[in-house]
Amino acid sequence: MNGKLIGVGLGPGDPELMTLKAHRVIANAAVIAYPALENGDSFARSIAADVIPDAAREITIHIPMTQERAPAQAAYDRGAADIAAALETGRDVVVLCEGDPFFYGSFMYLFTRLADRFTTEIIPGVTSVTACAAAAKTPLTARNDVLTIIPGPLDSDTMRQRIEAAGAVAIMKVGRHLGKIRTLLEQMDLAPRARYIERASLPSERVLPLSEAPDPAPYFSMILIAKGQDPWLT
Amino acid sequence: MNGKLIGVGLGPGDPELMTLKAHRVIANAAVIAYPALENGDSFARSIAADVIPDAAREITIHIPMTQERAPAQAAYDRGAADIAAALETGRDVVVLCEGDPFFYGSFMYLFTRLADRFTTEIIPGVTSVTACAAAAKTPLTARNDVLTIIPGPLDSDTMRQRIEAAGAVAIMKVGRHLGKIRTLLEQMDLAPRARYIERASLPSERVLPLSEAPDPAPYFSMILIAKGQDPWLT
Repeated sequence: MNGKLIGVGLGPGDPELMTLKAHRVIANAAVIAYPALENGDSFARSIAADVIPDAAREITIHIPMTQERAPAQAAYDRGAADIAAALETGRDVVVLCEGDPFFYGSFMYLFTRLADRFTTEIIPGVTSVTACAAAAKTPLTARNDVLTIIPGPLDSDTMRQRIEAAGAVAIMKVGRHLGKIRTLLEQMDLAPRARYIERASLPSERVLPLSEAPDPAPYFSMILIAKGQDPWLT
Repeated sequence: MNGKLIGVGLGPGDPELMTLKAHRVIANAAVIAYPALENGDSFARSIAADVIPDAAREITIHIPMTQERAPAQAAYDRGAADIAAALETGRDVVVLCEGDPFFYGSFMYLFTRLADRFTTEIIPGVTSVTACAAAAKTPLTARNDVLTIIPGPLDSDTMRQRIEAAGAVAIMKVGRHLGKIRTLLEQMDLAPRARYIERASLPSERVLPLSEAPDPAPYFSMILIAKGQDPWLT
């Protein structure tokens, strides 16, 4: 009898924004897996560090940060093989995921490699989008607003079209794309409504007007624009 | 010295999907407020029921479910006045919110009425969007996918445009709009990829192909379409 693959969302960074279920599952885990940079640093592991049992076996999946995608995919191949070997011993494997497992995370590359062969369970987590809205004290969407979540690497023309069509916008993974995005939002007259948030929920969290955002921004940064279409909110 | 207004996200329904922080704040609350139907039923309160201290004072905000919006806004006026009176005694008021406080919730109508006068804190929660993806075991968005969240009441033409532009789509508040949405997705040849989820994370959770979804659907229902633009995932 094989073990179960469990993808656990850890939330945006504050360990207290982990769910009760994530906490329970991690505290009882025999095998834990997580992505890490090539130097071994793992944001996911750092969020859960105080909960991981001393006796747990840890599978570290080193993801190369290259422009080319094949090296990362080879790393997921190896990670999935290590996880499969552990599952075949009958033990569950808990995969630690920043935010939510199915929301712009690396977990889905493991999931697609393993879900055909093993039982799976996904424990959702708080995403950086609502954590940033909380940090900025900016209501995102009411009633019939459309919310569009846009990755920062998108080209300006596509980004402009998506923003025009939305009632509220979250631009994720801002990082080195900050200059391009700021220029676009200034052209669209949306810059005064835009809020910049970095490292939401962590002690180093910062919320700034877009005009004061650092360029380049850190990887864990976001821009929120609530265009506020609900007249009862204004 | 006034108390603090604390909006607490409770997650999608399973009490174990509450965050550790939400649990701590509710367990220590002296005054708790929450929206309820006119008959007194409150989904938010039901999620937190086992955590609310016996000694806590409870402020119930009865929201009339009318098409007209003025009666609900009058209820928020009264609720905000009750909360303000409690805050002025120096006590914090914890407002219970299904999902996340700033994500399609009623909390923002209280927030806009009180945030100018009182200190506020927002504790983000797991949204129904990622809870539904977890229930359906459907990865939502990878890398540079655009995710668009669309309220079910939107008209078909606008909905079609938003869906065409997105990499992944979550249609919220499906309810009595199910027929309209199903027809649209069939016309767009997206029906086979669409998953229907109701009451995600609750014991009564159901995940169905769109063709088998009930019409009308319950209020807490969603349709997810992952158009899957990342070739490494397919």
